[in-house]
Amino acid sequence: MENFTFRAPTRVIFGKGADDDVGAVLKEYAPKNVLVHFGGGSARRSGLLDKVLGSLDRAGIAHVELGGVEPNPKVGLVREAVALCKKEGVDFILAVGGGSVIDSSKCTAFSTANDCDPWDLMTGKVEPVRTLPVAAVLTIAAAGSEMSDSEVITNPDIPAKRGINKEMSRCVAAFMDPQVTCTVSKFQTGCGIVDIMMHTMERYYTGDPDTELTDRLAEALLLSVKNAGAVAIRDPENYEARATLMWASSLSHNGLTGCGKSPRKFIGHALEHGISAVFDRVSHGAGLAVIYPAWIKYICRYDVRRFCQTAVRVWGVPMDFEHPEKTAFAGIDAMKAYFRSIGMPTTLPELDIRPADYERIADIITNGGRTVFSSYIPIGKKEVLDIFRLAEE
Amino acid sequence: MENFTFRAPTRVIFGKGADDDVGAVLKEYAPKNVLVHFGGGSARRSGLLDKVLGSLDRAGIAHVELGGVEPNPKVGLVREAVALCKKEGVDFILAVGGGSVIDSSKCTAFSTANDCDPWDLMTGKVEPVRTLPVAAVLTIAAAGSEMSDSEVITNPDIPAKRGINKEMSRCVAAFMDPQVTCTVSKFQTGCGIVDIMMHTMERYYTGDPDTELTDRLAEALLLSVKNAGAVAIRDPENYEARATLMWASSLSHNGLTGCGKSPRKFIGHALEHGISAVFDRVSHGAGLAVIYPAWIKYICRYDVRRFCQTAVRVWGVPMDFEHPEKTAFAGIDAMKAYFRSIGMPTTLPELDIRPADYERIADIITNGGRTVFSSYIPIGKKEVLDIFRLAEE
Repeated sequence: MENFTFRAPTRVIFGKGADDDVGAVLKEYAPKNVLVHFGGGSARRSGLLDKVLGSLDRAGIAHVELGGVEPNPKVGLVREAVALCKKEGVDFILAVGGGSVIDSSKCTAFSTANDCDPWDLMTGKVEPVRTLPVAAVLTIAAAGSEMSDSEVITNPDIPAKRGINKEMSRCVAAFMDPQVTCTVSKFQTGCGIVDIMMHTMERYYTGDPDTELTDRLAEALLLSVKNAGAVAIRDPENYEARATLMWASSLSHNGLTGCGKSPRKFIGHALEHGISAVFDRVSHGAGLAVIYPAWIKYICRYDVRRFCQTAVRVWGVPMDFEHPEKTAFAGIDAMKAYFRSIGMPTTLPELDIRPADYERIADIITNGGRTVFSSYIPIGKKEVLDIFRLAEE
Repeated sequence: MENFTFRAPTRVIFGKGADDDVGAVLKEYAPKNVLVHFGGGSARRSGLLDKVLGSLDRAGIAHVELGGVEPNPKVGLVREAVALCKKEGVDFILAVGGGSVIDSSKCTAFSTANDCDPWDLMTGKVEPVRTLPVAAVLTIAAAGSEMSDSEVITNPDIPAKRGINKEMSRCVAAFMDPQVTCTVSKFQTGCGIVDIMMHTMERYYTGDPDTELTDRLAEALLLSVKNAGAVAIRDPENYEARATLMWASSLSHNGLTGCGKSPRKFIGHALEHGISAVFDRVSHGAGLAVIYPAWIKYICRYDVRRFCQTAVRVWGVPMDFEHPEKTAFAGIDAMKAYFRSIGMPTTLPELDIRPADYERIADIITNGGRTVFSSYIPIGKKEVLDIFRLAEE
């Protein structure tokens, strides 16, 4: 087991009616002016935004609003948000939405507090020393940004997608009412399920020895998400399934499943970020559903025992003691079959990505041919192209 | 799934050499004067105390020391600590020890900050509105007080043992070097294993429906502790086993395994606190190893499916679908056999507690014959006596 640090300071308010308490809870932080940041209008249409604004009004908290955050949130809107925060003296940001809105809020908080350009922050040119407090009213179970230390922002001009991890960027509070997620579409629910699983698996497939406790917690998460995911796709109004997915989204990405493991590398995310940087229409979860099984197939032979373990414990594959590699591959097949059962694509052609696109995406992933951090083996451009070919069927 | 709130703000610094960072980390909190609180001398003999004091000195942090915390920590020493804190202007408490030292420190922090008598605090006569920050250098994997919101203090004059739960009382930081625990005796290691398991099980056996994620996390903890516990007893110097127990002690009691369940009742602890309030020589873990299986036997018929689930998933008992109750009881027998295998008593005679003592203990547990909060059924004096009889063999 590797040395580690852990803390999960985000105050989670979870369950039916959680969103009613927003104003009362935020009042404890005594904000002068709150930026309420949201996405494309579904928060407004559903009435959630009005509910939240009303709650702030009742608590006597001043606020300004900025909507328009898109999936794969863009640096341009962050710049707009920073300008608004400076003009209005905003000292607290409330994200009403999913991972994209929360990430846009976190980046706005950092850029405002450190008086820097958001892309300089995302590329590491500026090292943040402070931030504004950010809270989240979560509307979709997926990204886990509500408890994580990370944020991902896209710059379409380059194009590039960059992520940073800073302990400081954890939300101070997260309001999670699973009922809000009952209206999330089947496709977006499926994307969320894959994203949650990937946040767990990216920390799980690392080759580190002696991490039984962390591994078993990860397997508990994967199994619960697998079961609840199947129910939520079949019966979208099922509260218990929605609640399980929502809580799992936070636990999968708050660091718990990485304790005692070597520093995270998140190769699946690196591969997917290349795809959605080029094809903005590709949802993060859908891209992961295609590319992660292909990566696993590529490196599975370096850790057959570990892939057998998941096949048996998570995917319900019987162990073939004479041919462990068959068990490992059967586990990968079972995972792909599960993804298909929840309506996810599992091949590049389904994303309308063709061999002619591979070079361009691989160049972005490898930043022009460099080696990408990964577990087990270094991943360069040749390996990326090999993985793409494994994702063709 | 019930509504819940969750946060785990304690900054965990875990692994080999974690204790080297005490001074540097504490400096971030800018304390004026730190009370270094410890136990009966093993922290001094092992050299850990000197190491910690040296680390504070190097960081230029002023400190005073108070040792002498006993197992089942006493209110008398807390009063002494409070007087010292007031005299010396202490504004930060550093516990160097296990659950007893941390609990004594938490109670001292509350009583000093609220200027009240510690027993008034423990009996609920005084409601604390503030506290001093407390950090812990952990020396034994057991109580989980380093991340929990709870503390338990004994008043030998009554005699009584009282616990309180306050969100405010979570440690700001916890330094956990598993190497420190390699010298913990087999008996105390066994007591710790039982205590960790009980913090998980007390939240697990509640009869709440639809808590798959929390349940699977709890089972992951129980399985890992079972496996690591067996190794640590056989091979006390095994770092990986000690590390698993240490991290599990924190996760079992930081609230994670209670999310979505009804408010905790901790009947096993209530029963055991009665025993060790009368017989101070009884270690908390040993008392739990005796009384908890008896309670489970008593109430098992109210939730046979749940006890089958643990029997199968944690204790490796094959499911008898025709006779589920046999599976449930086989699980309890397997748990008792495990406790015996790690050197724990599982009967009252082994604790030298006789039928003639039952009434007196039952009176303390039930506070003179009242009903004790419990899961499944109310527990009154008659039920306590029935449970004691089940703990005779």
